[in-house]
Amino acid sequence: MINREDQNFLIHTLDFWNHLTSNQQALLLEHTTTVHYTAGQRLHRGDRDCIGVLLVKTGCLRTYLLSDKGKDVTLYRLYGGELCVLSASCILKSITFDVHMDVEEDAEVLLLHTSYFAKLMQENIYVENFANKIAVERFSDVMWVMEQMLFFSFDERLALFLLDESSKTSSTTLKLTHEQIAKYMGSAREVVSRMLKYFEQEGLVSLSRGGVTLQDKTKLRKRFLP
Amino acid sequence: MINREDQNFLIHTLDFWNHLTSNQQALLLEHTTTVHYTAGQRLHRGDRDCIGVLLVKTGCLRTYLLSDKGKDVTLYRLYGGELCVLSASCILKSITFDVHMDVEEDAEVLLLHTSYFAKLMQENIYVENFANKIAVERFSDVMWVMEQMLFFSFDERLALFLLDESSKTSSTTLKLTHEQIAKYMGSAREVVSRMLKYFEQEGLVSLSRGGVTLQDKTKLRKRFLP
Repeated sequence: MINREDQNFLIHTLDFWNHLTSNQQALLLEHTTTVHYTAGQRLHRGDRDCIGVLLVKTGCLRTYLLSDKGKDVTLYRLYGGELCVLSASCILKSITFDVHMDVEEDAEVLLLHTSYFAKLMQENIYVENFANKIAVERFSDVMWVMEQMLFFSFDERLALFLLDESSKTSSTTLKLTHEQIAKYMGSAREVVSRMLKYFEQEGLVSLSRGGVTLQDKTKLRKRFLP
Repeated sequence: MINREDQNFLIHTLDFWNHLTSNQQALLLEHTTTVHYTAGQRLHRGDRDCIGVLLVKTGCLRTYLLSDKGKDVTLYRLYGGELCVLSASCILKSITFDVHMDVEEDAEVLLLHTSYFAKLMQENIYVENFANKIAVERFSDVMWVMEQMLFFSFDERLALFLLDESSKTSSTTLKLTHEQIAKYMGSAREVVSRMLKYFEQEGLVSLSRGGVTLQDKTKLRKRFLP
């Protein structure tokens, strides 16, 4: 059972709430727990568990692929207000792959337990649709990462551009707007902004008004310039 | 409008059919067309069109990513009885990426036009759930490709590709050139030729003009697929 504040947060987020019977609403609340996770904790490891649907209140969870050789690729991060159903992939028959999930920043999370959620999905088409819909959102995240990895062009080019500018100006802080970077690179501002945000999440740069600061040039060089 | 046989095929495939009103059923049939596509034809090009939901009757459609440099990576193929909603990605708000689609073998396809399908999705939760569910299935296909690209070394990937093609076509002889294999695998012809020659030397395959014959599937499987 969760407290009143968490109940409101949950109800506000679940778009199927009003399509539940009052009995289903009560049971769903009963099968939801507020959980505190600590940075560094492993939340979900491939197919070895199916804890439930996660709704992040605060903090950050990172989802990634892990090879048997230990190679790791970030698929997406979840922040406050975001949901993940891949941590309960067992309830979606059409999901046949598995991901890993770690706690990146201390997090408070509402956990909708698999046991009841799976039953609710069978009883109520709005719940099933909700689960599928969230999965499709993550599909888009993953496709973006995949495009970057496959065509290995724009991230490399942006990394190269930033490193170049930095050595030209002998400064790790570049006084350039995303618009300007896009213009210099012959790209679109949205593309630049999205990639810079990704770099920021990876701890490579930090962004401020009208500027980009290179946080870790060695890492940036190593990662993108073979 | 489509003929009686195609109607039965459609009704049998759409799991939401019985949740439609008879008026909705009639309108959906009215907005469905039987289309013949010819091998080599381009069906869907990124965000430039949103033709509708495709239900393949016969033949084969190939979905792929295409970079600005012309590099091409197969995401999945659709055969008889399979559906695709990415060709109508505009109707799913949470899909923010775009794919390309070609006709690989002459195909007969039922096309559920975007105009009415989008409306039906808004009217009927079962239809919305159906569209999301199909998208999630493709998500799994794409994740599989991504894992291959990221984690397997090339010999493993090639072995897997040959075995897959062999079981899809129920034949140990694959009528594919090295060029085609390279294209499907997102690799270069030289890389494929070199690895195939290696496989041949190892007695795993034999090579001929325009074809590869698997000599020892068990050995191939054992050796490369843990």
